[in-house]
Amino acid sequence: MNYSILRDLAIIIVFAKIFGLLARRVKAPQVVGEIIAGLLIGPSVLHFVDQSQFINQMAEIGVILLMFSAGLETDLKDLMRTGFKALLIAMAGVAVPLIGGTLLYMGFYGFSAAGTQEFYTALFVGVILTATSVSITVQTLREIGKLKGEIGQTIMSAAIIDDVIGIIVLTFVIGFKNPESNPGRVILNTILFFVAAILIGWVIYKIFKLADMRYPHTRRIPIMGLALCFFLSYAAETYFGIADITGAYVAGVILCSIKDSSYIAEKMDTNSYMLFGPVFFASIGLKTDLKAIDGGLILFCICFVLVGLVCKIIGCGLAGKLCRFSWADSLKIGVGMMTRGEVALIVSQKGLSVGMIGSEYFTAVILLIVVSSISTPVILKALYGADDKRLKTANAK
Amino acid sequence: MNYSILRDLAIIIVFAKIFGLLARRVKAPQVVGEIIAGLLIGPSVLHFVDQSQFINQMAEIGVILLMFSAGLETDLKDLMRTGFKALLIAMAGVAVPLIGGTLLYMGFYGFSAAGTQEFYTALFVGVILTATSVSITVQTLREIGKLKGEIGQTIMSAAIIDDVIGIIVLTFVIGFKNPESNPGRVILNTILFFVAAILIGWVIYKIFKLADMRYPHTRRIPIMGLALCFFLSYAAETYFGIADITGAYVAGVILCSIKDSSYIAEKMDTNSYMLFGPVFFASIGLKTDLKAIDGGLILFCICFVLVGLVCKIIGCGLAGKLCRFSWADSLKIGVGMMTRGEVALIVSQKGLSVGMIGSEYFTAVILLIVVSSISTPVILKALYGADDKRLKTANAK
Repeated sequence: MNYSILRDLAIIIVFAKIFGLLARRVKAPQVVGEIIAGLLIGPSVLHFVDQSQFINQMAEIGVILLMFSAGLETDLKDLMRTGFKALLIAMAGVAVPLIGGTLLYMGFYGFSAAGTQEFYTALFVGVILTATSVSITVQTLREIGKLKGEIGQTIMSAAIIDDVIGIIVLTFVIGFKNPESNPGRVILNTILFFVAAILIGWVIYKIFKLADMRYPHTRRIPIMGLALCFFLSYAAETYFGIADITGAYVAGVILCSIKDSSYIAEKMDTNSYMLFGPVFFASIGLKTDLKAIDGGLILFCICFVLVGLVCKIIGCGLAGKLCRFSWADSLKIGVGMMTRGEVALIVSQKGLSVGMIGSEYFTAVILLIVVSSISTPVILKALYGADDKRLKTANAK
Repeated sequence: MNYSILRDLAIIIVFAKIFGLLARRVKAPQVVGEIIAGLLIGPSVLHFVDQSQFINQMAEIGVILLMFSAGLETDLKDLMRTGFKALLIAMAGVAVPLIGGTLLYMGFYGFSAAGTQEFYTALFVGVILTATSVSITVQTLREIGKLKGEIGQTIMSAAIIDDVIGIIVLTFVIGFKNPESNPGRVILNTILFFVAAILIGWVIYKIFKLADMRYPHTRRIPIMGLALCFFLSYAAETYFGIADITGAYVAGVILCSIKDSSYIAEKMDTNSYMLFGPVFFASIGLKTDLKAIDGGLILFCICFVLVGLVCKIIGCGLAGKLCRFSWADSLKIGVGMMTRGEVALIVSQKGLSVGMIGSEYFTAVILLIVVSSISTPVILKALYGADDKRLKTANAK
């Protein structure tokens, strides 16, 4: 037994919590604080903690728990109800950043033919840009009393569909991690996985629903849910060659409609925030090599952030306009959809672990999260403020 | 990343939960079911799961969390209030089984001089027998309405002190794991650890008390508590050469008097029962080699169980008699103190991990837990039943 894992865990959770709280105080997302904590205690700065196999395994479990929770929080009924508008906005919000990110990478590091490894790396940079995280937008809209309006509801629905489309795109692209992979086979495997997930998932859902009616709020429900999450993550990787996080997300979606889904989510949450979550976010900091940052990377990071923000505004905004929102409202939708969060990190981590991208992209993703989460509330409030002003002027006339 | 850890975790938690529930149905402790699950899925029977470094590390964290929880549930005020009676009963309840276990081992495998490695192994077998687990006794007394009586209160107090004395004895004996260890140094280190724990613990307690008053029921309290637990476990092993579980227990005791101690315990509990606890108990099953069981071991196991039960009855019973309880009541105290549980397993696991005992003793400990937890309620109820009968006869006269 190597007791240094206990010291590492103690240091990670203390620093992650302190910096998470500091980040919240300056209105940045907590996860950014946790990543900075990892950076600080890692080899780049203080060197209190090294990467280790155990920390990486704990971090992987952390990612799986986070994706399971994300799946659990999906509201399938809401998803079914969301109309054509939200679907179109979500699709544009995935497609435009995907293309934008791919072109950005190729612009920096050279164009490469479809099917080459380099091409998939470029595509993966696009995939990282697809995942929206609307929690900050939701918070902002709630603050100014606009959450229940049409724009707020459209953004929320689009964000849910965005997650689903994003995970499907990720699943496909990850399938190509192996240079010898046969595109037809990857597509077949991915489709097979989702078909199997729907069929088996339906049976599992029924079993859980029955068990939950008979034994509501008992420990066995979240425990068996967690086992399902681990098993589907494993099965996705081993039998279908697709990302474990897709399996974890699907496990969450399967259970999201049982009565105790929020009870399961609550128990998962405790497991996440106490130990696995901080370990995951700090491990991203640990992996980020500050020495690798040079002029070229800084330029790439800045362009990455700009492309990430602009592509969401253009994609979702134009889709909004197509859905007959006014230009002003379309802009609000675009801005509301531009925030990124945990999922972008989870996707990057996945890309790193399968060798599609290097750890230097973490810097770009972290920057995107910080910039988008700080600027979105400011811009959104300004846009709504301008509206109110115009309204007042109109009324005064 | 080795994805088989996900499959292993899924299998472990499913089987552990199912067998835990089955055990509860036949009135045996849940942990016994979880161990049997480990045995079943392990190399001895179905061979679904192998021991692995990751599982062992998770199990070690599980043990630390369990000991931290045990510490958190200590009631220092209660401990201070318990008088001389409970102290005497607890001391006898540690001393007699310690001697009994040591002699039992020597009787089976030959006497050895004090100071040799073999001597410490014998002593360690005694240490395993010291830990009382009164939860089953408490449950039984509550059921028959005798928990608030003098005997119930005495047993509960004695069990708390028993834990403290047990951990001190364990700490000393573990100190001798290294054959070259200097007895004087081990004793000095152990004393230094407890002195440091009291001094630093007092400061930490004050800090936590302040933080808890300012931020009650916030996540930072259990998170920082967990960090303290990991840090003291590490410090105990690394700086003082004593068991990590002692550090974890001390961390729990330090925090047991802050207002949110039950809040921390609740969060730890969720972490334990979802993942770390089942992994620990199942890992004991995984390590138990059924093929190693032969006639000699079976005989040893039976004697181990008998010595374990009889020594507690004699030790605690005679101490009770010395405290002027009647013979009948002294017997009840002895029987009430004879149950063993998780802590006996944790101690054995510790002995295995430092190489003081082999994994074959798990079988004996598991048997002791099963026999004691099934027989205690039966015997206790019979003893109280006989009392009531006598009382009725006396009244009828």
